[in-house]
Amino acid sequence: MPLGKYRFITMLSLLGLLFASFIAPAQAEGKVFAEKKIVLQISDRDPFKQKLVLNVANNLLKHYGTDQVDIEIVAFGPGLRLLFKDNSNSKRIDSLVNNGIRFSACSNTIKAMTKMLGQPPELNTNAVKVSAGVVRILELKEQGYELIKP
Amino acid sequence: MPLGKYRFITMLSLLGLLFASFIAPAQAEGKVFAEKKIVLQISDRDPFKQKLVLNVANNLLKHYGTDQVDIEIVAFGPGLRLLFKDNSNSKRIDSLVNNGIRFSACSNTIKAMTKMLGQPPELNTNAVKVSAGVVRILELKEQGYELIKP
Amino acid sequence: MPLGKYRFITMLSLLGLLFASFIAPAQAEGKVFAEKKIVLQISDRDPFKQKLVLNVANNLLKHYGTDQVDIEIVAFGPGLRLLFKDNSNSKRIDSLVNNGIRFSACSNTIKAMTKMLGQPPELNTNAVKVSAGVVRILELKEQGYELIKP
Repeated sequence: MPLGKYRFITMLSLLGLLFASFIAPAQAEGKVFAEKKIVLQISDRDPFKQKLVLNVANNLLKHYGTDQVDIEIVAFGPGLRLLFKDNSNSKRIDSLVNNGIRFSACSNTIKAMTKMLGQPPELNTNAVKVSAGVVRILELKEQGYELIKP
Repeated sequence: MPLGKYRFITMLSLLGLLFASFIAPAQAEGKVFAEKKIVLQISDRDPFKQKLVLNVANNLLKHYGTDQVDIEIVAFGPGLRLLFKDNSNSKRIDSLVNNGIRFSACSNTIKAMTKMLGQPPELNTNAVKVSAGVVRILELKEQGYELIKP
Repeated sequence: MPLGKYRFITMLSLLGLLFASFIAPAQAEGKVFAEKKIVLQISDRDPFKQKLVLNVANNLLKHYGTDQVDIEIVAFGPGLRLLFKDNSNSKRIDSLVNNGIRFSACSNTIKAMTKMLGQPPELNTNAVKVSAGVVRILELKEQGYELIKP
């Protein structure tokens, strides 16, 4: 029965797709059903920019709704200071993390700062190290994230 | 007459398209026939950045021609100061508005500054309020605008 | 022999394509086989930003490999200072140029600075003048370059 054979193959394919769709969430790094994907860049020295990037993240959550927007904040260069353990905004960072926002710290910057300080800077426990901040941003853009630098 | 019927439906569709094309200009917010659509972001504290964003807008007008480029300048965070009534660049803003450039002011920033100042900041009469500067930028990007932050 | 005729036309077309592919490298401005094309913008006054944009360029070379990434650094506004002959980073610029990175200087900014200084600023010999920095950036984006402003 050739028809039955095709049906079997079709069913196998559908099962495969189904299986893939169950696996996908584990591979994806952000909110799977978010309609908007945004990467915010912080690389400035001006401490006010740290506040601004958090304000922007907050406004995005308010506008789109927490489940509808997937936000990653990538810090590199002098902007890494936002992710220092003793940064004055760390409570706001915690609250944004609770709303699903991710914070990425540039390993190249960490290495450079370690040389300068004589020891590695203590980072916010919510910060996730990425190889290079700019490379992370390019990866996210490829995945359809919009880049905003507040 | 099936042919006549199809012709009738085709004509109706064409009329619909024609109608839509007349309506479109009213819905569009910018220069309809511009070949380039650009959104300029101003969110810095440095007053020199205010001059720079206006210089860039001017250079774009000169390069592409006033009718060929559609420019919106979105101000938020400390960059909103560009759109204060008493800003030193207000005459240049007027002249750019006469060339079809639009200026958008972030309502979230206005709210925050109102709290700080005890009263709402007086804005340039050319400024058009938008809900959030960053959301406006994302909307424009979706409509095909290129984002430049001078 | 119609078949022969078609074969002849096909061969001519293939020759044309072949010829075009040999010409292409001469017209292209960057690394032809690079998988990544990135334009870095420098338009800030803060001298640290000059270091940062060179660090970012260096990190990109290290991450993707010199032959796999095509980088152009476009300087305009106060950022043009990076391309002044006596800029403290000029040795690093030379080394980046040796790795295929291009440096573009905004002619509009040069004109404005010439007025201010009473004479044209002396530029790094590696700097290539472009009409307007922002127009150059838009051209590169159209060619598939990703814009990053460190």
